[in-house]
Amino acid sequence: MEFQLEHALEILSRTPATVSAMLRGVSGEWARNNEGPESWSPYDIVGHLIHGEETDWIPRAKIILEHGDSKPFEPFDRFAMFEKFKGASLEKLLGRFAQRRQQSLDALQQMNLTPDKLARKGTHPELGAVTMKQLLATWVVHDLGHIRQIARVMAKQYAEAVGPWKAYLSILSE
Amino acid sequence: MEFQLEHALEILSRTPATVSAMLRGVSGEWARNNEGPESWSPYDIVGHLIHGEETDWIPRAKIILEHGDSKPFEPFDRFAMFEKFKGASLEKLLGRFAQRRQQSLDALQQMNLTPDKLARKGTHPELGAVTMKQLLATWVVHDLGHIRQIARVMAKQYAEAVGPWKAYLSILSE
Repeated sequence: MEFQLEHALEILSRTPATVSAMLRGVSGEWARNNEGPESWSPYDIVGHLIHGEETDWIPRAKIILEHGDSKPFEPFDRFAMFEKFKGASLEKLLGRFAQRRQQSLDALQQMNLTPDKLARKGTHPELGAVTMKQLLATWVVHDLGHIRQIARVMAKQYAEAVGPWKAYLSILSE
Repeated sequence: MEFQLEHALEILSRTPATVSAMLRGVSGEWARNNEGPESWSPYDIVGHLIHGEETDWIPRAKIILEHGDSKPFEPFDRFAMFEKFKGASLEKLLGRFAQRRQQSLDALQQMNLTPDKLARKGTHPELGAVTMKQLLATWVVHDLGHIRQIARVMAKQYAEAVGPWKAYLSILSE
């Protein structure tokens, strides 16, 4: 698929409801278990998604609009949520994510992203030249990647409980 | 995690809302594109989930309760949805899945699955000896596996649109 803003918004606007449907009200075992040392639980992933809203996607889009490729993006701290949201309940994080995502979508709309603006270039600190369109497509894929990660982390809690069916369930060996 | 019926029900009862949050109202491009030849679109996956409700999970649980391991399960047709739901809208399939899942959960409750019943053995046509608990854990992991598949299929539609960010997005190379 070629990038189209309307298509991207379809996914970006759905992610908070998807993540809430998966996680709101689940037991601590589902929310807080991870895939082993150095891996993330669904709870951690929601914190990471919030931090992206607050420091990554819209701030980078603004840098492109205001500075083009003359000012590289700030590097994104992928682990900030461990300190930033320490002690917050999962329910609180889900609410904050939905709120922050709505603010991001409002900010996007205010940017009035014409085809010209979508083609504008920015500078990623590691990847180099990127475009506004690529940034927004990445935001969509990043959402979907973490939805898939939440599903995988939860599935792996039952890796032994499924017994011989393990052979048929490829999510358990990802 | 050890299998617990309450934990399994938390996931099984959430899946229709999760799948609806991801897919209800999305463009045909998101719903109907797949990962290439012989692969499934999100639309196909919803059909597969319905067919599981109608012919697989509860019918197998009933065979275990009624016949133990003396009667092997019917093999499950993983491709039945291509003919069975031909021409149905995505919205219709999402509604049918939610309805069928609720019927499955009602049937489960009527089975009054005590620890003794959860430990009962059945016979899988290929895998051999399995238990009721393993069947129900597999149902949970199967749900999560298809949620992750829907996310992956949609993400891959933007494999090129993300440009150089592709290197960071592991979901695109799964």
